[in-house]
Amino acid sequence: MDRRDFLKKASLVSGGAAASTLAAPAYAQGKRTLKMVTSWPKNFPGLGTGAQRLADNITAMTDGRLTVKVYSAGELVPAFEAYDAVMTGTADMYHASEYNFVGKSKSLAFFTTVPMGMTATEFDAWIHHQGGQELWDELAASFNVKSFPAGNTGAQMGGWFNKEIKSLDDIKGLKMRMPGMGGEVLRRLGASAVSLPGGEIFQALQSGAIDATEFVGPWNDLALGFYKTTKFYYYPGFHEPSGGISVGVNLDVFNDFSKADQAMLRTACIAENNLLSSEYNAHNGAALEQLVNKHGVVLKKFPDDVFDAIGKVCEEVVAEFGAQDELSGRIYESYLAARKNVGDWMRITERPFLDGRDRVLG
Amino acid sequence: MDRRDFLKKASLVSGGAAASTLAAPAYAQGKRTLKMVTSWPKNFPGLGTGAQRLADNITAMTDGRLTVKVYSAGELVPAFEAYDAVMTGTADMYHASEYNFVGKSKSLAFFTTVPMGMTATEFDAWIHHQGGQELWDELAASFNVKSFPAGNTGAQMGGWFNKEIKSLDDIKGLKMRMPGMGGEVLRRLGASAVSLPGGEIFQALQSGAIDATEFVGPWNDLALGFYKTTKFYYYPGFHEPSGGISVGVNLDVFNDFSKADQAMLRTACIAENNLLSSEYNAHNGAALEQLVNKHGVVLKKFPDDVFDAIGKVCEEVVAEFGAQDELSGRIYESYLAARKNVGDWMRITERPFLDGRDRVLG
Repeated sequence: MDRRDFLKKASLVSGGAAASTLAAPAYAQGKRTLKMVTSWPKNFPGLGTGAQRLADNITAMTDGRLTVKVYSAGELVPAFEAYDAVMTGTADMYHASEYNFVGKSKSLAFFTTVPMGMTATEFDAWIHHQGGQELWDELAASFNVKSFPAGNTGAQMGGWFNKEIKSLDDIKGLKMRMPGMGGEVLRRLGASAVSLPGGEIFQALQSGAIDATEFVGPWNDLALGFYKTTKFYYYPGFHEPSGGISVGVNLDVFNDFSKADQAMLRTACIAENNLLSSEYNAHNGAALEQLVNKHGVVLKKFPDDVFDAIGKVCEEVVAEFGAQDELSGRIYESYLAARKNVGDWMRITERPFLDGRDRVLG
Repeated sequence: MDRRDFLKKASLVSGGAAASTLAAPAYAQGKRTLKMVTSWPKNFPGLGTGAQRLADNITAMTDGRLTVKVYSAGELVPAFEAYDAVMTGTADMYHASEYNFVGKSKSLAFFTTVPMGMTATEFDAWIHHQGGQELWDELAASFNVKSFPAGNTGAQMGGWFNKEIKSLDDIKGLKMRMPGMGGEVLRRLGASAVSLPGGEIFQALQSGAIDATEFVGPWNDLALGFYKTTKFYYYPGFHEPSGGISVGVNLDVFNDFSKADQAMLRTACIAENNLLSSEYNAHNGAALEQLVNKHGVVLKKFPDDVFDAIGKVCEEVVAEFGAQDELSGRIYESYLAARKNVGDWMRITERPFLDGRDRVLG
């Protein structure tokens, strides 16, 4: 189906849904319950608890006038059908990662993460101040969605392997869980990559359906128990230098809100972007220590030559994702310009400071 | 005056102010105007415009029920009297940097920046998830204030000098603008350090009252025109690896708000924390290019041995700031623990990724 046709259809369906919501008694009394579907298990650390914190905060700020009900993956719709649910009005909003919806448009992946791409700090600068949000709005509106950043996992670990990775040959033939552009990079390297929701990875590892996986980082990976089946834990991840979590609101629902409620929703998401991102940075260190010291996980760094060889493939894949159509081309160019602009600044400021601090603190 | 006595006095004064505000006609109609004093020139890039954006957003979210009126430095009170104004109820809130108020308590400096301390990313993890906010609340409450993070300049430049800095001898005898703990470090190195509001620095440089200065980074420093009198621009700054901007609300005023408005105010500040921090990262690169290529500024990196020697002095000064009293001791210990915990994690994740990305992108 052509995107324009899809838009028409989605608008019709969600328009109907919005109208029926309007007629509901709760709304007539000035109160309204919003359905938020997620791609995460119930109250999963960071991803699920962040969704719930955002929901609770919206309820608190409006003194209960707007109540957000959070649905875990599979409760209302499966994890990766969250976007469809919001497009069509089955749900009012989602809390998820855009790159799980590349079936809609490959360009959505730029709003989660890009292999060899930007860190969370760089990504925020692009989204808020270098045109990222405007491009995202243009893309999401074609699906009848309005999206906001609502968290970030930070730079992710390289993943869990049951053997050492000493050369590109060790990647060939792997069956690995890795979504988005990173998965496509793996395919070019001779692995088979699958995209699985967080809640389904452990079983796939245990059954041998996959023999390697990445998910997020120590805090989340500890919770999913990968250490029970897989011992080599690699860093740094080439595939997700940041991991954007986003909220998407059905565009008819969003436009139906007052300007004040629109500002409140946007502000709640951006505050949660700061809270959730920093929560990952606050918890990963202790979780990594536990994985290594309590569970005997072997922490390994990818050899530089392997990382660099993968990096070249990343650049090719990202360019292809950015060559889908006219809009994807603009997103790609804008993303790359921001990576260079903000990245160059970081080389003058934070990074030499940290190198110096390492020398001073020993 | 003893802090306890001060607290009593401040509570009495501000309690009175809150009561008179309650009686004002605008509040009786459910509308209220909040006075926000700042330490910045009107609409100064980032600092002033961030204060105004926050004010506008609070007005937007409440549909004008709460209007925040922003006062530039000197308009209602001088730049560095913003804290006093909020403590005593002359103003409802401030938008400023805590380290300009070390006359109240040296410990306030930990909530702006610490020489050899944490980056903005690390600072956010501490504030939101490793006990920083709770310690800040305890300290600020002793002055009848409730404070929130509301922005960050990111890692700052080392400053503007009219000669090259080749050894510690070149720092001796300097008259330099540098507030907070960084200023104390300079004094130990034989310089004289003064704290001046942004709007007064250029004149001091031009008149020769000071012969070196730091302020923030390229975006702000370009706006203040330092390049017209001073040519050597050094990095990285040892003194401000992050530069926290905060909002403090008179505690009686804050407690008088509904729970919903308290949540709204807190959320607005945390969202602005994300927006303003990323705005600095988005603008500094282009401003630096302009300073170097258009204005002939000479960009220099501190020699490693100079940076490292300064670093040792930083650690001594920070320890002394953390040994003022029982609370400052807890703040110091908590800050140092977070620097180690989050810093160690960054050495596994973002930093090796960026080193690898540099190799791949060339």
